[in-house]
Amino acid sequence: MKTINIGIIGAGRIGKIHADHLLRMPGAKIAAIGDLFAGDELRSWAAERGIPVVTTNSNDIMEHPDIDAVLICSSTDTHVPLIKQAAANGKHIFCEKPVSMSVDQTREALAAVEAAGVSLQIGFNRRFDHNFSRVREIVSAGRIGDTHLIKITSRDPSPPHPDYIKVSGGLFMDMAIHDFDIARYLSGSEVVEVYAQGAVLVDPAIGELGDIDTALTTLRFENGALGVIDNSRKAVYGYDQRIEVFGSGGCVSADNDYPSTAVVSGPDGVTRDKPLYFFLERYKEAYMNETRQFIDSLHNGTAVPVSGHDALQAELIALAAKRSLQQGRPVKLAELTTGISSAG
Amino acid sequence: MKTINIGIIGAGRIGKIHADHLLRMPGAKIAAIGDLFAGDELRSWAAERGIPVVTTNSNDIMEHPDIDAVLICSSTDTHVPLIKQAAANGKHIFCEKPVSMSVDQTREALAAVEAAGVSLQIGFNRRFDHNFSRVREIVSAGRIGDTHLIKITSRDPSPPHPDYIKVSGGLFMDMAIHDFDIARYLSGSEVVEVYAQGAVLVDPAIGELGDIDTALTTLRFENGALGVIDNSRKAVYGYDQRIEVFGSGGCVSADNDYPSTAVVSGPDGVTRDKPLYFFLERYKEAYMNETRQFIDSLHNGTAVPVSGHDALQAELIALAAKRSLQQGRPVKLAELTTGISSAG
Amino acid sequence: MKTINIGIIGAGRIGKIHADHLLRMPGAKIAAIGDLFAGDELRSWAAERGIPVVTTNSNDIMEHPDIDAVLICSSTDTHVPLIKQAAANGKHIFCEKPVSMSVDQTREALAAVEAAGVSLQIGFNRRFDHNFSRVREIVSAGRIGDTHLIKITSRDPSPPHPDYIKVSGGLFMDMAIHDFDIARYLSGSEVVEVYAQGAVLVDPAIGELGDIDTALTTLRFENGALGVIDNSRKAVYGYDQRIEVFGSGGCVSADNDYPSTAVVSGPDGVTRDKPLYFFLERYKEAYMNETRQFIDSLHNGTAVPVSGHDALQAELIALAAKRSLQQGRPVKLAELTTGISSAG
Amino acid sequence: MKTINIGIIGAGRIGKIHADHLLRMPGAKIAAIGDLFAGDELRSWAAERGIPVVTTNSNDIMEHPDIDAVLICSSTDTHVPLIKQAAANGKHIFCEKPVSMSVDQTREALAAVEAAGVSLQIGFNRRFDHNFSRVREIVSAGRIGDTHLIKITSRDPSPPHPDYIKVSGGLFMDMAIHDFDIARYLSGSEVVEVYAQGAVLVDPAIGELGDIDTALTTLRFENGALGVIDNSRKAVYGYDQRIEVFGSGGCVSADNDYPSTAVVSGPDGVTRDKPLYFFLERYKEAYMNETRQFIDSLHNGTAVPVSGHDALQAELIALAAKRSLQQGRPVKLAELTTGISSAG
Repeated sequence: MKTINIGIIGAGRIGKIHADHLLRMPGAKIAAIGDLFAGDELRSWAAERGIPVVTTNSNDIMEHPDIDAVLICSSTDTHVPLIKQAAANGKHIFCEKPVSMSVDQTREALAAVEAAGVSLQIGFNRRFDHNFSRVREIVSAGRIGDTHLIKITSRDPSPPHPDYIKVSGGLFMDMAIHDFDIARYLSGSEVVEVYAQGAVLVDPAIGELGDIDTALTTLRFENGALGVIDNSRKAVYGYDQRIEVFGSGGCVSADNDYPSTAVVSGPDGVTRDKPLYFFLERYKEAYMNETRQFIDSLHNGTAVPVSGHDALQAELIALAAKRSLQQGRPVKLAELTTGISSAG
Repeated sequence: MKTINIGIIGAGRIGKIHADHLLRMPGAKIAAIGDLFAGDELRSWAAERGIPVVTTNSNDIMEHPDIDAVLICSSTDTHVPLIKQAAANGKHIFCEKPVSMSVDQTREALAAVEAAGVSLQIGFNRRFDHNFSRVREIVSAGRIGDTHLIKITSRDPSPPHPDYIKVSGGLFMDMAIHDFDIARYLSGSEVVEVYAQGAVLVDPAIGELGDIDTALTTLRFENGALGVIDNSRKAVYGYDQRIEVFGSGGCVSADNDYPSTAVVSGPDGVTRDKPLYFFLERYKEAYMNETRQFIDSLHNGTAVPVSGHDALQAELIALAAKRSLQQGRPVKLAELTTGISSAG
Repeated sequence: MKTINIGIIGAGRIGKIHADHLLRMPGAKIAAIGDLFAGDELRSWAAERGIPVVTTNSNDIMEHPDIDAVLICSSTDTHVPLIKQAAANGKHIFCEKPVSMSVDQTREALAAVEAAGVSLQIGFNRRFDHNFSRVREIVSAGRIGDTHLIKITSRDPSPPHPDYIKVSGGLFMDMAIHDFDIARYLSGSEVVEVYAQGAVLVDPAIGELGDIDTALTTLRFENGALGVIDNSRKAVYGYDQRIEVFGSGGCVSADNDYPSTAVVSGPDGVTRDKPLYFFLERYKEAYMNETRQFIDSLHNGTAVPVSGHDALQAELIALAAKRSLQQGRPVKLAELTTGISSAG
Repeated sequence: MKTINIGIIGAGRIGKIHADHLLRMPGAKIAAIGDLFAGDELRSWAAERGIPVVTTNSNDIMEHPDIDAVLICSSTDTHVPLIKQAAANGKHIFCEKPVSMSVDQTREALAAVEAAGVSLQIGFNRRFDHNFSRVREIVSAGRIGDTHLIKITSRDPSPPHPDYIKVSGGLFMDMAIHDFDIARYLSGSEVVEVYAQGAVLVDPAIGELGDIDTALTTLRFENGALGVIDNSRKAVYGYDQRIEVFGSGGCVSADNDYPSTAVVSGPDGVTRDKPLYFFLERYKEAYMNETRQFIDSLHNGTAVPVSGHDALQAELIALAAKRSLQQGRPVKLAELTTGISSAG
């Protein structure tokens, strides 16, 4: 088995998580890590892990002759240029979601990837979660028959900092985009229409930045199924990530994960601990699995499990949701793919 | 304690259920039962229970001098004239839902009730369910803070006969109207806007009758909260009646009821029996409770727990949902209350 | 259908519960109720319910020519003489558990019943509980294969008054006797050996009266299965009544019943209300079912669902447990049935 | 942070699991691995992992000057001599359970460890399980008050091979010993008396080897609490590892772990997948945690989390259980510690 040499661009929290998974993975080696703000701390972190190159210049990675693949973990505005550059240099690509805030730019990036014939996997980590993938398996196996309704609950334990909200692209593009992807993943069908309602119920500061913190988005799928996603930026009991798929033959649902199964019966009721706090805890294994499958697909020359098309579709749904919210009406995805996407 | 003498109009399934509950209730007596098709069977059924009068003419009940209150359990088209007649005769009224398919007619009935100064309780039995009323208690006690999201799952085990579909008023007026009432009951706020999606996924025959069998309805409440109801006419695993209220301080949810808590762990998985089959099983106690509270309110001279206003609001939401579905856009309830309700 | 005329002896809590169930039961009529302390209150209670005879002399019931069956709900010390008298008068008998504290006396009562050819049903109400009877059904259907282990949890919410403890016959005869019966009911096999451990952990006053408040009793069944029962007089979270049967083909367990399915997720955890408080709430339906089946068996001339033999066996297990506790060794039931039972 | 150099003795399944955890652990290095049957396969396995020394002679490890600590993962009969040798060579020791089948030999090993002043940690991995440790935390925090009852369910998915049964030391020493340790861990009190029942219900071959496959063991603790453990060698639905601690202030219980939270409601019931299959799946994280804490305690010079005393006590309980089964009576642990242990 040839070793895949990896360059990581962006050494924030998620970049380091991917790094730690790759370090334990047979058949992969981290050849370099780059970050605009790389300093002593990152150098010493890399040294402890035997990562030979640390750089502030992504070209050092993009042009490194031994590097087979790059992980793009930098801020969203850098994704498209980095994808194009990586493709031009023949590197395979793993890119965090979303590819961009603009459908046109995402399309350009995808075209570059296709022209170069490299692999591009998108970081929709939830597809690799043990609960969601089990639900998908059950749906795919036909155990619930034809899909009629999909329900997704997706609530964060607390809102991000206002500085992040400003550049996040808004709740739909930043947070619900995962849910849009999961909706497609579970339904096995494309979304054709979106109606979104939003509200500022958690923190007025979010509203002042032009964003919402609570949303209810309904979806209509090509195969006739209906879907609904509810989002909140603040669930005081922790990360709330549940799904339900209802069909002609039954219903499958997945509950949250908990730190333990311990339950206390006492004079005030029967209590268990709160669900796992946030995505790092809940999707710990999912992050590992997605990286492993990326490396595996490179080794085996097989398709990556989450494609650029998947990124584009989720972004289209997010834009449709945004437009629906702004205009107070259901929006067909077709509207966004016929020369009017710039209004999104 | 004075005994309340009751006349029941409509001796179908639900009329008989109410009768059986009243027979066991101290302080109430069934003085008469009327049904257009009353025959030997009903006469013998009534005789076994000591009900002295059986009639095919509702006037025998409406004009009976000893009767204090009537239960209207006949078909929906008869509700308004019977309510008016009962009110005119000074009888208190318990009426099954909906009062009518027309907001104008419902308003007329309510006006007659008000003019007569009698009590009118609507048969929204689910408010008396142990799960839903416990959720309401928890919400009212402030345990989940301000309400942000309300989610209602309401699925029947199998669709009604096409003959019933024809006269039912459609899924929103016939089935979802209960959910619209529960949404108001749980939120403690009025619905201001409705967006409804519908589909025919269960049985094409339902579509041919101009109705739908699957629906996703989103609600916006006056207090800013958002709500969503999903309906299906056919859940193969039985009656599915769950609710969830999410707020600034937490989330409360109620699961289905099951015939037992027995769980079998075997080579193929861990299995429990299906939920209770349908509304007669699930809401058995709720039916008893609503009748008891009606009788209690008459004894005590207190307000009935579900008023005519509650009927009207649920009907308005149903009409808004229907119009939303027809026109493919969100519909404000205000549209229906400003001289354009005839288009509903 | 002939009406069965019933006389109730003992108008305490349980006698009145049975009365209320019988009053709603087609084919049964309460002809008389007797209580040593019958006074104005009982007379007025009976009058409201149309019970014609109230007496302080049980002979008025035993010798009443129209009475077909008696319910013996008086204190345990009266059970044997009343059973004998009822049998002698040709009355069918429903008797609360235990029949007596002495195996010899219980045998005498059973012999009298057999000689008279009347029916005798014992008030082991838990057999009629929806959870326990569903577990039994699953075991009987062979879904868990051969039974290997039976586990019963049986804990009261709070200990009875010391005055009751004194005359109760002790934890095994008073409280665990229900569990001994359920163990036999679920296993479909007889207990052959008992080892009991006891402790006074709840209230020293119980120890001073020579009783225990906490017990762990292990059973060996004729078919080779093993069983264990844990008892406590005080579970601060309410009545705890769970069972589990493990076998070669799987495991079936039944959890407690709860007043609702509502669950609150909040900053301190995920909480549901406590289980139903005590036996009147938990076994409400079971009490109704056992009375109905008694009446049905009289109408149909079929065997009663819980026989005098069932009473005797449960009492033998209770005596074996008591002896095991006293002597600190496992005790075979055969020891108690070979002329040495007076030492129990 | 100084690196701890480790030698692993015994390269079977569990030895390799520990190795893989140590390889990922900062501050630890595997300097050598030894196995009587070390061959090409092990050499290549070690080479892939950069383990420099592979040997068939444990002296190469014991006498290796750079090795700080040994992990003893070889068969039980080798534990005592290896512990003594390691202690004599000043190596810290991690040893799988049980130390030996003989209390006298275990005591000798412990004495050698104490004389040498090295650390000895026993591989009671379940103490590091997220569920059991959370229950312990809850008990220790006083949330259930004084402990009254401890219940442990411990069932394997399928019996080991008869060849293993022969040398296993029997169900109590091989399998239930983990449960005896957990009982002590949860109660915070010593066991003073044991009564054990056993049966051969799974496989007669096990009985022919003089062992049992089903057991019910009751414990009496020094602090007055009672305990019960049920064991089976075969649960067709997978590994069944549950605990419950009941006390004056409430009850805490921990359920099994499942591969996902997905639940399917279908026409035949409501089903989830079986629990995690066996100890490697269930206790995966626990194995990692115990190794990490061993290394941490060596770094920090703190006490190991599971001591030699813990091993000895669990072995005493296992011997008491065996004797109880043989003699059909409760056995006090004091019997085994007063010169009569050779009869165990």
